Amino acid sequence: MNQVSKTPAPPYYAVIFTSVRMPSVDGYAVMAQRMAKLSSQQEGFLGMEHADNDDVSITICYWDTTDAIAKWKQNVEHRAAQAGGYEKWYKSFTVRICKVERDNTFER
Amino acid sequence: MNQVSKTPAPPYYAVIFTSVRMPSVDGYAVMAQRMAKLSSQQEGFLGMEHADNDDVSITICYWDTTDAIAKWKQNVEHRAAQAGGYEKWYKSFTVRICKVERDNTFER
Repeated sequence: MNQVSKTPAPPYYAVIFTSVRMPSVDGYAVMAQRMAKLSSQQEGFLGMEHADNDDVSITICYWDTTDAIAKWKQNVEHRAAQAGGYEKWYKSFTVRICKVERDNTFER
Repeated sequence: MNQVSKTPAPPYYAVIFTSVRMPSVDGYAVMAQRMAKLSSQQEGFLGMEHADNDDVSITICYWDTTDAIAKWKQNVEHRAAQAGGYEKWYKSFTVRICKVERDNTFER
């Protein structure tokens, strides 16, 4: 996974997934790694950024169109992971679908 | 700081700040804490989410309008912090200004 995603010029889309996990659920890390790999193979994927502390986890996925986001949401393996999210992985989460209108990058 | 921000119904705005810090810079934590507090006192502030690992840090600030974002960008203390960012705090960063078009929240 990249540290800071190198995305094309706006507009493009961001899906912000902010979550609080349930304590110690077996299999979470394997599922998360699989979803990271699988999403990166989808058409329209532009990049992913992720950070998590003990209390909260943020994953941002960048896409070229809302159609690409909709297709990824319907991916069979991803749907199974989403079901697991509601069933056991998460205590709470918010998903936000965003249009990136402007950006600015700095590199030393 | 909230874990998962409770934001109003879309549309609203998100500023995603993804950064890689320089190693061991004195004063960073104090500045970051001050900016978190100060931003939360601005008109139009809706919430903040933050997570960081050793390698990357993600801070997302939610605002009700682009005007509120523009005003916060011009805040005198914030401008000094931004200057410090270019001068010494960050190895690299990307700021993305996004319109949140849809969201979905789950709470167990």
